[in-house]
Amino acid sequence: MTEFTKVLLEESDIPTHWYNIVADMPNPPLPSLGPDGLPVSPERMLAIFPGNLLEQEMSGERWIAIPDEIRRAYQLWRPSPLFRARRLEQALGTPAKIYYKHEGVSPAGSHKPNTAVPQAWYNKQAGINRLSTETGAGQWGCALAFAGQMFGVAVRVYMVKVSYDQKPFRRSMMQTWGAEVFASPTDMTQAGRDILARDPESQGSLGIAISEAVEEAAGRADTNYALGSVLNHVLLHQTVIGLEAKKQLAKIGEYPDMIFAPCGGGSNFAGIAFPFLADKAAGDPKAKNLRLVAVEPTSCPTLTRGVYAYDFGDATGYTPLMKMYTLGHDFMPPGIHAGGLRYHGDSPLVSQLFHEKLIEAVAVPQLATFEAGVQFARAEGIIPAPESCHGIRACIDEALRCKASGEPKTLLFNLSGHGHFDMASYDRYFAGKLEDYEYPREAVEASLAHLPKVG
Amino acid sequence: MTEFTKVLLEESDIPTHWYNIVADMPNPPLPSLGPDGLPVSPERMLAIFPGNLLEQEMSGERWIAIPDEIRRAYQLWRPSPLFRARRLEQALGTPAKIYYKHEGVSPAGSHKPNTAVPQAWYNKQAGINRLSTETGAGQWGCALAFAGQMFGVAVRVYMVKVSYDQKPFRRSMMQTWGAEVFASPTDMTQAGRDILARDPESQGSLGIAISEAVEEAAGRADTNYALGSVLNHVLLHQTVIGLEAKKQLAKIGEYPDMIFAPCGGGSNFAGIAFPFLADKAAGDPKAKNLRLVAVEPTSCPTLTRGVYAYDFGDATGYTPLMKMYTLGHDFMPPGIHAGGLRYHGDSPLVSQLFHEKLIEAVAVPQLATFEAGVQFARAEGIIPAPESCHGIRACIDEALRCKASGEPKTLLFNLSGHGHFDMASYDRYFAGKLEDYEYPREAVEASLAHLPKVG
Repeated sequence: MTEFTKVLLEESDIPTHWYNIVADMPNPPLPSLGPDGLPVSPERMLAIFPGNLLEQEMSGERWIAIPDEIRRAYQLWRPSPLFRARRLEQALGTPAKIYYKHEGVSPAGSHKPNTAVPQAWYNKQAGINRLSTETGAGQWGCALAFAGQMFGVAVRVYMVKVSYDQKPFRRSMMQTWGAEVFASPTDMTQAGRDILARDPESQGSLGIAISEAVEEAAGRADTNYALGSVLNHVLLHQTVIGLEAKKQLAKIGEYPDMIFAPCGGGSNFAGIAFPFLADKAAGDPKAKNLRLVAVEPTSCPTLTRGVYAYDFGDATGYTPLMKMYTLGHDFMPPGIHAGGLRYHGDSPLVSQLFHEKLIEAVAVPQLATFEAGVQFARAEGIIPAPESCHGIRACIDEALRCKASGEPKTLLFNLSGHGHFDMASYDRYFAGKLEDYEYPREAVEASLAHLPKVG
Repeated sequence: MTEFTKVLLEESDIPTHWYNIVADMPNPPLPSLGPDGLPVSPERMLAIFPGNLLEQEMSGERWIAIPDEIRRAYQLWRPSPLFRARRLEQALGTPAKIYYKHEGVSPAGSHKPNTAVPQAWYNKQAGINRLSTETGAGQWGCALAFAGQMFGVAVRVYMVKVSYDQKPFRRSMMQTWGAEVFASPTDMTQAGRDILARDPESQGSLGIAISEAVEEAAGRADTNYALGSVLNHVLLHQTVIGLEAKKQLAKIGEYPDMIFAPCGGGSNFAGIAFPFLADKAAGDPKAKNLRLVAVEPTSCPTLTRGVYAYDFGDATGYTPLMKMYTLGHDFMPPGIHAGGLRYHGDSPLVSQLFHEKLIEAVAVPQLATFEAGVQFARAEGIIPAPESCHGIRACIDEALRCKASGEPKTLLFNLSGHGHFDMASYDRYFAGKLEDYEYPREAVEASLAHLPKVG
């Protein structure tokens, strides 16, 4: 028979536990701080998160059991396939072996449902039947709309107005799954009304949308808030990606030399990387030289050019302070097409691991990511999301280095989502209308000057 | 462990042979006829099709081997998963068991690559490095663009102008896979120029686009033509769907009582149904009461309201005459959103089987199909293409009959594609802007009056 293309697992191979990297970190994670500079009490967070998720957020347990109902919902698309990119290898003429985990097979088209589903379920268990959230380009809003529908949890999404107007089809998807979607800023929240009073034509921003969603959740006892990245429990849920990938690679007797994933808030990278870091932490010899590379855009180079400091998680300073790599909470990144990577900060866990040199980071420019995405699509068929193109770019670059050096490395990247709702970006790329952005030094310096003073 | 959701196969389970129903038909298929009323000679067809595909078109062999290179390309997405729709069953409260084969997992998002890939490969084998084709909404154009890219075959797509303008993202996909896409009518063919001379503002039609694509293939020695449905070899390639589904159902000890699939040109229905018809032909007792239902729109009810007659395959009378159910080749169906089902005729093989009462057909109205699609998406996650919603509608109707009667039937439908590029149609449905079309009696009567006279 011919050589394999995909490594598949059975539904019984869906992980039974999420992996919590906190148990294996050399130093404990630093706490989030309130406006008073003191650690935020869990009680304060209970206004918008259920206790069961807060427990996960604070947990130091290495393994956290995945409830059966969540595993059953995962079965709608998991285990996701692991592909060997034989046609891409051939196109590149590289001696490297390239593998990718395809998270675009979820109904919402990205890795986001891996955490949306548990978040909806845990809220339901806590007696919460209503969730509010924000979404920019719509990937996260879609995931939560889908997940809410699975468990009978109503979902309200504040969608950044410019995306609501320009990307109507992700809004349509959310509505198909029964979610309410509003163009943010709305007149339904004080935060929205304040903005509209100042600027009736406001096109919105992720920061404003977060403020609206959090305000609604904080103000209504029946409603909680859900976030699609950054937080510990979100990264925890995403580890199903890496846990499956390890099992799939083991099935064919492989282990990666390097792993690549796009990194915005960090959940995509953490999802595939953390379970392999566990091997390193355990002193597994095969992981000794393993390198884990977070890939970010040159226009929003949080890990590679930011500072490691306490900063707000949102643009408006509403959230607790988190210790993370940041470009400053009021840094406004250029309008690149990988909307999921335009975040001024990074998850505290990813930040700390980077700070402690357990992981690496690299920044890649926009045009080169689309070039990589098109090369991948022509070789492998699947059209990747612009975010995913970042991981592909870095992986191709390494494969080309292998070609030059003759090293037959084993490379793995996370194909975090398909690009079916991003074809307008590909159009602009083909039309020569996309540009690269330099490192926005002045904007970063200006926003870093506004970092909150702590301690 | 929890109950299964998907039945998966290994890549080694991809069928080694396509199933040719011609070998099992009670009567041989009727030949296509030329303008002189005599059977069309294969030689004439060699101007636009390669000999190896024409051999398949004419073959009476029951099993036709699938070359290894095609099976390797199939591995990019096959075997496709078979799902048990447990959440849909629960939402309906039916005792019926509902299964669906998910063909939307292909890179192009539908079942069409099952035949696009072999068509590109066989042309390449025949020394042809260039294919022309037409596409309406873009499903077929995407599939051929993807397939051409796999084997280094250049693809030129004539895309109906109104779709080219209104559905730009399928065009973007084709371009991502390297195809040339032109809004038809163009000034590059005589057929196009003639139309433009009469109507410079022509929005195009599938008939015109076919004429352009065929003209180009007929006029250039280096170029062949490829068609996405209707022809025998196209239906043959699609039988991988049903062959896999049989193996998947056998794995869990199931056999369907009824099978549903949307039916436009017929390849989608044939793909899932024909391999089960083989069981009936072989006298297999478990297939004795099996019912196979082709589902079409009430607005274009070819099998349920058409006549069985010789007619042209295209709107302009360019093709040979085929014996089929038809509403008349110049019948222009209402602009429903399931563009893939707006075909005036039906494949000769499906038509003959329907004429001989080996299969059934039912027509469903547009609004009810979207209602079914939304119900399916909310239960199962996947957002189906408008074409696929037709099969879902008929299957849900049967499941509801089972609920009334208490019969625990086993139902299977073909989820032929996802709806990611059809969200504008869902928008119109939610906005109450979609309408049902009555059976277009007068238009059908008018076009049937123009049926070519044969024999």
